[in-house]
Amino acid sequence: MNNVLKDSFKKTTYKLSQHGPRNASVLQDAFQSVDGSLESDIYGEGAVIENFESKIAEFLGEETAVFFPSGTMAQQIALRIWADRKTNKKIAYHPLSHLEIHEQDGLKELQSIEPLLLGTAERLLTIDDIRNLSEPVACILIELPQREIGGQLPTFAELEEISQYCHDNGIKIHLDGARLWEVTPYYNKSEKEICGLFDSVYVSFYKGIGGIAGAILAGSADFTDEARVWKRRYGGDLISLYPYILSADFYFDKRIGKMGQYYEAAKELAQRFNACNGVSTVPEVPVSNMFHVHFQKSVEVIEPVLAKIHAETGVGCSGYLQTKPGDTCGFELSIGDALAEVPTEKLDQVFEMLGAIK
Amino acid sequence: MNNVLKDSFKKTTYKLSQHGPRNASVLQDAFQSVDGSLESDIYGEGAVIENFESKIAEFLGEETAVFFPSGTMAQQIALRIWADRKTNKKIAYHPLSHLEIHEQDGLKELQSIEPLLLGTAERLLTIDDIRNLSEPVACILIELPQREIGGQLPTFAELEEISQYCHDNGIKIHLDGARLWEVTPYYNKSEKEICGLFDSVYVSFYKGIGGIAGAILAGSADFTDEARVWKRRYGGDLISLYPYILSADFYFDKRIGKMGQYYEAAKELAQRFNACNGVSTVPEVPVSNMFHVHFQKSVEVIEPVLAKIHAETGVGCSGYLQTKPGDTCGFELSIGDALAEVPTEKLDQVFEMLGAIK
Repeated sequence: MNNVLKDSFKKTTYKLSQHGPRNASVLQDAFQSVDGSLESDIYGEGAVIENFESKIAEFLGEETAVFFPSGTMAQQIALRIWADRKTNKKIAYHPLSHLEIHEQDGLKELQSIEPLLLGTAERLLTIDDIRNLSEPVACILIELPQREIGGQLPTFAELEEISQYCHDNGIKIHLDGARLWEVTPYYNKSEKEICGLFDSVYVSFYKGIGGIAGAILAGSADFTDEARVWKRRYGGDLISLYPYILSADFYFDKRIGKMGQYYEAAKELAQRFNACNGVSTVPEVPVSNMFHVHFQKSVEVIEPVLAKIHAETGVGCSGYLQTKPGDTCGFELSIGDALAEVPTEKLDQVFEMLGAIK
Repeated sequence: MNNVLKDSFKKTTYKLSQHGPRNASVLQDAFQSVDGSLESDIYGEGAVIENFESKIAEFLGEETAVFFPSGTMAQQIALRIWADRKTNKKIAYHPLSHLEIHEQDGLKELQSIEPLLLGTAERLLTIDDIRNLSEPVACILIELPQREIGGQLPTFAELEEISQYCHDNGIKIHLDGARLWEVTPYYNKSEKEICGLFDSVYVSFYKGIGGIAGAILAGSADFTDEARVWKRRYGGDLISLYPYILSADFYFDKRIGKMGQYYEAAKELAQRFNACNGVSTVPEVPVSNMFHVHFQKSVEVIEPVLAKIHAETGVGCSGYLQTKPGDTCGFELSIGDALAEVPTEKLDQVFEMLGAIK
């Protein structure tokens, strides 16, 4: 049955989520106006990588930045550096941090770091969770927004409080900014203002930005110097990273100004889901471009409904359904360029059908 | 002075080494005939990555293969897997192995592996070095050809003897095949025949093949299954690796049949260097597409000579000179497509000037 949903999703002309298909044209479009004689970066050096690192460092208000093939690599390295500086292998983060659930325990296996889980899985971590830590930690990682619970955010005031507390207590604070660009409209703060609360920052170029892959790790020069050594150790210091860098730069310029639009569209779309009987979103009012859609029915009930919506409207809601507690189910949406392409009447039809679930 | 040589090299129209400039057109050429609708690989899955992994596995005569962003990552992982299987953290390799001198000790820092150095830096490791190992090792890594000593090779008979010895003594044997394609003409053996002597194999796509970056690690299915878990841990399981995969595939098809041509051209070129007074090559007769050029004079003497050759002939010999023992110096050449572009009379002029060094 799972494949029926996936197949029906693939066949749709329009999508609610993301920026469009992840295919070769994403690369080709980015390289269309690149001069063929532009020299490759070579093992982390050269104008193509150095210019982009400087551009993003400046945009984030950080001293320096290093381009990485992946955030997984960048963040493990950031935490290792802080652990070394504090000679303390303990790091604290949310129970559903990417490092805890999506990296095959790389942090523990490669870096022997011992994570402490802050708070509980279903809610945001709080300043009280940090105050009540059972033992000293070198660093706290905060993910903004907390993706696995629908993209929730603490208030900016609480974030400031957490930052101050860490600073006062000699704890480093690292930003998992996989979706940092996407939270600036809700906070009504610039990336610089948000990053100013952290000692180190990771950002991604293939989510809200819609590039191909790649990440930036930013901080003080002594921090990024050390990160470059670890990047070589991990095998991340490729002879050429320009395919990712140039496409990251292209889509950054194209989309960095559209985060407010994605956020507004997410709120509007969530409202329409919440107006359907037995359907709700988490958060109820999105605080970024993303949210989770929850159904009060089982996968078995909802799958054929979505497959039918896909077939009849040509609008793809989701290619999968995740089982949720109490035999309910749901999926994740991240609003990008694709939603604006969906014709109004087709979107109306989607919500008519969703509203009619018995 | 170093920059004078580098700058003069950069300005040359022709080059003795490699396949041409590493610039954006390398990517653009590879993607020119790619259909824009071709779907990206997603975290190691999808036709674009699976087909290429199968193609190379079959070409190497291995059961399965995994595409990696870098050889550094692939080889550390291979050695860790064998160390785990043997519950022995000791691994043996040549003193000038890439893992020992170019990876900022990643193997030791990330994997706690303890390398034993086999033989001495200036020569190939031998079967006797292995027989005389002072303690048991989980795995021996053999690099073919041994790059840092000019690309030297053991005889195929000795390689068979080493393989048999390892097999008989419960030692795993891993091939650092960064330049595997390049040694098949000398051995007059297929990649399959060479790989058949090893338990696991790494090959590269940006040296003789001339792709952008990327590597394959190949072996039995249980080995590559484990390698995939480690690839995720290292942050090498990117959402999209297709920019590297499709270009690797493109240049593999373009150049895999040309290794014999590069080898013959390397032998011919080495002969011309050796005919110059005070100039010699290592090996004297190349056994692959690569060799080192040694001058019996110091960097200070040779730099202006090379810079003059660059300026007067338009043929680039080298952008750097490495100091060698006894105040001599040298550089490395790897023959690819570029050499065939050099006009005969210009090449003659290069060797006239090299032959006239006082």
